[in-house]
Amino acid sequence: MDKKVSLAVIKRLPRYYRFLGDLLDNGITRISSKDLSEKMNVTASQIRQDLNNFGCFGQQGYGYNVELLFEEIKEILGLNKTYNLVILGAGKIGQALLNYTKFEKRGFNFIGIFDKDINIIGTKIRNLEVKDIRELENFTKENNVDIAVLAVPAESANDIYEKIVSYGIKGVWNFSNKEFRKENGVIVEDVHLTDSLMTLAYKFNSNDFIEY
Amino acid sequence: MDKKVSLAVIKRLPRYYRFLGDLLDNGITRISSKDLSEKMNVTASQIRQDLNNFGCFGQQGYGYNVELLFEEIKEILGLNKTYNLVILGAGKIGQALLNYTKFEKRGFNFIGIFDKDINIIGTKIRNLEVKDIRELENFTKENNVDIAVLAVPAESANDIYEKIVSYGIKGVWNFSNKEFRKENGVIVEDVHLTDSLMTLAYKFNSNDFIEY
Repeated sequence: MDKKVSLAVIKRLPRYYRFLGDLLDNGITRISSKDLSEKMNVTASQIRQDLNNFGCFGQQGYGYNVELLFEEIKEILGLNKTYNLVILGAGKIGQALLNYTKFEKRGFNFIGIFDKDINIIGTKIRNLEVKDIRELENFTKENNVDIAVLAVPAESANDIYEKIVSYGIKGVWNFSNKEFRKENGVIVEDVHLTDSLMTLAYKFNSNDFIEY
Repeated sequence: MDKKVSLAVIKRLPRYYRFLGDLLDNGITRISSKDLSEKMNVTASQIRQDLNNFGCFGQQGYGYNVELLFEEIKEILGLNKTYNLVILGAGKIGQALLNYTKFEKRGFNFIGIFDKDINIIGTKIRNLEVKDIRELENFTKENNVDIAVLAVPAESANDIYEKIVSYGIKGVWNFSNKEFRKENGVIVEDVHLTDSLMTLAYKFNSNDFIEY
């Protein structure tokens, strides 16, 4: 790739991937950019522009080869690999994520869950026993941990984030309501549920917005 | 407001609201757009542009009055009202959301949780007893339901969404991996956790992106 791609484009790729997967599941092997655009409610020109960032996959008069495009996006997103995840915080959010089997189908494997609460440590959630957060350092030495899921309460989030960074874990999926300065090449992806709910409240009260 | 505001701007408002709330909690009553911009890692001109969409709150040489701005954004977002929410699907995600007390502090009150599983119906989660999903229609007639939280498995999502629309509920917070055509003025806000994880995977593998 010659140029840097905007994160706005990147964030649309999973959606393409989802739609193309649905098409494949329904036995559709080829689609015009017009049909894809109607299905996805995005302009055909937007789709062409997005996909051109990664090379040209459409053919004039033929449209897109669904499987080829699906596989290419899979590779672009890095979903041809698998990832080892640990969940930090074994509360309801941590448990909900561990129980969500769809992530594994995409190659995201939970290999550990940690908490500081002695009443939770040692209990079993799905296939994993909750470990003491103090064991995390040794665990990261003995296992290849790619991504830490930060699911601790706000007041512990900074402490745990510092541990993640110092133990050399490179990816953070952040469910705490805190934001962190990127450091040491650590990649953070935030899920701000309250922000999402506030956005819904805004839309609920106002028609003064455009959907982009 | 004379013109429609882009959703990209709207989606940044909860973040301003969060940061301003933190400032207030720390006793900071006034901030320059430069300091706010450094704290939020957004350009000062972006901040000015965003806030100008809703009227001008900054004063040359003074900066922003934190409390005033906080209250204005609160009103813009519709957080000066309260909302009644029902959770559809009492699995781990539904339970996690019901147990998350921060939403109530923002005025989002859970007044019901529903499921179709007879093993879950009648059990108590936090302060609510899980009701049979077949009672939802009557419940919406007897209560003012603003927002339905869609937390059912993918295979039930379409059915339940149709029920939501037909019962006249106007807001949907969608945790299913499905997307819905907007209809009858229904407002849908999607939380696609798998998309977020895929975006993280991309960033993990590539430096070829720009953070906007």
